[in-house]
Amino acid sequence: MLGTGSVTLVGGGPGDPGLVTVAGREAIERADVIVTDRLAPLAALAWAGSDAEIIDVAKIPGGRSTSQDEINQLLVEHAKSGRHVVRFKGGDNFVFGRGSEELLACLEAGVEARVIPGVTSAIAAPAMAGIPVTHRGLTQGFTVISGHVPPGHNDSTLDYAALAASGTTIVILMGVRTLSAICAALVEGGLDPETPAAVVADGTMPSQRVVRATVATIDVAAADLGAPAVAVIGPVAAIDGLQIGPDA
Amino acid sequence: MLGTGSVTLVGGGPGDPGLVTVAGREAIERADVIVTDRLAPLAALAWAGSDAEIIDVAKIPGGRSTSQDEINQLLVEHAKSGRHVVRFKGGDNFVFGRGSEELLACLEAGVEARVIPGVTSAIAAPAMAGIPVTHRGLTQGFTVISGHVPPGHNDSTLDYAALAASGTTIVILMGVRTLSAICAALVEGGLDPETPAAVVADGTMPSQRVVRATVATIDVAAADLGAPAVAVIGPVAAIDGLQIGPDA
Repeated sequence: MLGTGSVTLVGGGPGDPGLVTVAGREAIERADVIVTDRLAPLAALAWAGSDAEIIDVAKIPGGRSTSQDEINQLLVEHAKSGRHVVRFKGGDNFVFGRGSEELLACLEAGVEARVIPGVTSAIAAPAMAGIPVTHRGLTQGFTVISGHVPPGHNDSTLDYAALAASGTTIVILMGVRTLSAICAALVEGGLDPETPAAVVADGTMPSQRVVRATVATIDVAAADLGAPAVAVIGPVAAIDGLQIGPDA
Repeated sequence: MLGTGSVTLVGGGPGDPGLVTVAGREAIERADVIVTDRLAPLAALAWAGSDAEIIDVAKIPGGRSTSQDEINQLLVEHAKSGRHVVRFKGGDNFVFGRGSEELLACLEAGVEARVIPGVTSAIAAPAMAGIPVTHRGLTQGFTVISGHVPPGHNDSTLDYAALAASGTTIVILMGVRTLSAICAALVEGGLDPETPAAVVADGTMPSQRVVRATVATIDVAAADLGAPAVAVIGPVAAIDGLQIGPDA
């Protein structure tokens, strides 16, 4: 008889394996199967047991939408065969990570599942570049958006004029390709073009790179920075003197 | 001659000590001095060396504003005496945690300092209650605000009508006392009173408690829930079937 398998969603944090949680590390150490993809901090896979099977779903053939279904099915099938599965992703699985869809698929299939939240790059990548998303006296909030669906797209649920007026720091994940369009929408929506902005690529890694400019010029300034990158727009992006990371 | 001291800001995550990062745990294990307060996950202090000095700044006498100056000075003085100091807080030090002020004080005093980001309760507490802050098709962003400065206060930098129109999930930290005023400001600003809302107290802990209602009724529904608590407003607060935490 097979033992009872399980699925654990583990948030791997922004890239530095030291930013995986203690519980996340333990789950990796105990896993029979680890389902990962290219944005997860792969150095952390060194903690896996020598018998663990590592499945990189970025290499599974098929289109984007079928892939998510395939991933859900993969998690369920391995757990149903009695194995302890870790779904290992960069950042936090519930921040634009399809974690809620994967969890729902597991629970609907009767598979035991749990979630180990992770450090989001939306906060950590700016932090390592010396940019706090909140700073007393400057801002009492921050907004994290995905650049995956650009302004004006039929699927977009965001109101960029409202974001511009909100008074919060705006953090953009997965926005390398759409940064120009997002910044233009914010300025068109009333954001002062002189608002400070920054882009952090490979945040928390030795290869970290940072560019600072304004919301009107950051797209050009960051054009050659590469991905993955996190953009920050707001007065906090001009804070100076906190650089402690690789670019200090 | 004294060795060179340092200050490390460690984000302790939402409460469960398993949600401290691997690097954060190592910093605690090596620290000569740990400066903590009541919202840090105190169970993680068991990792400290037997010689480590634990200073709970919640117990330092003095008013709120002098206390932060005292904390800054405490960090700098201990580091300058050659000790490795960990500043241990709940969540992430850069999310309403005064981390940027403490880091600036250290760097201005010539003290070596670094930052280890943490898991923020803004994401993790809702997650453990089965509420993802983002969910494909429902929202492409989330906004995290502090309830410390309520709507209408002279120091408030937030535009609640803009937040209501933004199309993002709204997460409120430190909002137990001001939840009524914040929800009223959002509804007055145009948010549909039927918008789902939830409050999670003691998120990620065995004592976790969750209440769900609407933005118009959540303040009454959550009145007896206690602190610390995280409020979530938006369609994601109505997602059902993801409960895996202590309240499942």
